[in-house]
Amino acid sequence: MKDVAKKANVAKSTVSLVINNSGYVSEETRKKVEDAMRELNYIPNRLAKNFSSQRSHLVGVVVPDIMHPFFSNFVKHLEKSLYDKGYMTMVCSTLGREHVEQEYLNWLKQSTMDGIIMCSHNLSIQHYIDAQKPLVSLDRFLNDDIPVVSSDHYSAAKITVSKLRENGCHKVVQFIGSSNANIKADDYAKYCKELFNGPDEELIFHKMPINTFSLKDYFFTASQAFSQNERVDAFIGTDMVINQCLKISRQKNIQVPDQLKLIAYDGTQVTGMTYPEISAVVQPIEALAEESAKLIISVIEGKEVTGQFNKNQVFWRQGGTTF
Amino acid sequence: MKDVAKKANVAKSTVSLVINNSGYVSEETRKKVEDAMRELNYIPNRLAKNFSSQRSHLVGVVVPDIMHPFFSNFVKHLEKSLYDKGYMTMVCSTLGREHVEQEYLNWLKQSTMDGIIMCSHNLSIQHYIDAQKPLVSLDRFLNDDIPVVSSDHYSAAKITVSKLRENGCHKVVQFIGSSNANIKADDYAKYCKELFNGPDEELIFHKMPINTFSLKDYFFTASQAFSQNERVDAFIGTDMVINQCLKISRQKNIQVPDQLKLIAYDGTQVTGMTYPEISAVVQPIEALAEESAKLIISVIEGKEVTGQFNKNQVFWRQGGTTF
Repeated sequence: MKDVAKKANVAKSTVSLVINNSGYVSEETRKKVEDAMRELNYIPNRLAKNFSSQRSHLVGVVVPDIMHPFFSNFVKHLEKSLYDKGYMTMVCSTLGREHVEQEYLNWLKQSTMDGIIMCSHNLSIQHYIDAQKPLVSLDRFLNDDIPVVSSDHYSAAKITVSKLRENGCHKVVQFIGSSNANIKADDYAKYCKELFNGPDEELIFHKMPINTFSLKDYFFTASQAFSQNERVDAFIGTDMVINQCLKISRQKNIQVPDQLKLIAYDGTQVTGMTYPEISAVVQPIEALAEESAKLIISVIEGKEVTGQFNKNQVFWRQGGTTF
Repeated sequence: MKDVAKKANVAKSTVSLVINNSGYVSEETRKKVEDAMRELNYIPNRLAKNFSSQRSHLVGVVVPDIMHPFFSNFVKHLEKSLYDKGYMTMVCSTLGREHVEQEYLNWLKQSTMDGIIMCSHNLSIQHYIDAQKPLVSLDRFLNDDIPVVSSDHYSAAKITVSKLRENGCHKVVQFIGSSNANIKADDYAKYCKELFNGPDEELIFHKMPINTFSLKDYFFTASQAFSQNERVDAFIGTDMVINQCLKISRQKNIQVPDQLKLIAYDGTQVTGMTYPEISAVVQPIEALAEESAKLIISVIEGKEVTGQFNKNQVFWRQGGTTF
């Protein structure tokens, strides 16, 4: 660094400012310093810098499958939020592999990452608690010390049920997850069932396979639901499975929304890929990502943050699969 | 580490084996060591380890937008391949922001990452060459020293044109990118135009907007192409824009494939979300990801790797948007 300062004919502190991109340095001076660095082949070692500060400025995000539109959308906005705050994002799709989730936690314990945002839920809760490191959980309660970010699933259920009634639905099939992982989104189904409870109202749960997000599996699950249930007025569930329900309706020549209503919960771009577009209760994915980023950094910086942040407002987006 | 060894009643080398997860250690011994580590609150500092080895075992991947199905699919398989080889994946969506791409290159220069796989192309080529660090490029030639991974776009064009002819198409609109970034995928359009050159054959290029991957923009571009071109037999382009063409066809009550043919190039899951499914020339995304992972690690490990790896075989998947 001394050599760079000498060559560029500036103070050593100026070189430091340029390297750390902090404080005011004129364009001209910056260029002189950068030229000197290039000529001397001097590369400031960020690892060395991290080592001394004991912060890596890396945040990990663990998702079930980055290819799933909900998670690719979430990661997009998360990475942008973290970047704006000076952190980089590491991403991991567990694809149902428990050991990957475990190893990520190990990396966290070993300070490769400063914190993790967990959106995947294969391991038992104890593993996360044992980590004793900055964690934020998306949509799953772990313990009182780990903040949980989720949408307002109760409002989502209220909107869904009111739309079902407006559309005159009596018999409804709802696709639900099949894990027992204490996932908040499962509350959505529970609330729907509680609320859709009139004398003439029936809500039937149909389980989805665990840890698979392939189109083939969604198609299979949707086909099964069609064949196992007769005279259904509506299907409700996450975007991908409802997308496949629409596809099957067309194949079977069932008129949507005249003969069958479809409502998706998530409202990712998948609901805009068909004609008609799918009516959806929309999760505010960008807000969930921003809140997760804000929280993990607060925890990393040692601020006390606990509790459940589940008031992220959902909203209705009218498509052509309901009236 | 000595204290852990003492407490667990094993050799120090055994503790090291457990920490580094290398060599054979019985389950029982591993548990003893882990218990001792927990009791002593001993956490091996991976950053310190990285510092001494000068390797971070992090690979960055820079994509235009992780939400785009091609890239979320690519990153999924890339991360899995890298993980299996002992590397973690950092992800960055540039979202058209040049300074983000530049900063990522700076991080690379400063050894935060061991290497980068570039799938985004905002910056001029010189920036990448200046980095003088392990780089692999997806689908763009940078210079002779930086390996390029791409699909066999010439075969893709041959398949496309032969399908257009089988379907009796004469006037075809092809959606093309509008950057001048020397992207290999642009060769696909060039080849299609060269090959679709019979006396009765016309191929019209329709430009897509730069650096935007929102459904709204795809819809707008597709609508424009419909209104600007009359008596078109077929539209060809990437999955998302062709998806929106199918949507518009339904809106306008144009029968697909009777009155209009649609062929997508990429063949991501988007082509399976509609009825009919979209006929596609499929890029082998998993193979592209695996090859990219293999190459970047070879470069990181100092092996000499140069050249273009563009023989990744594409294939035809028949949907219902062509005969």
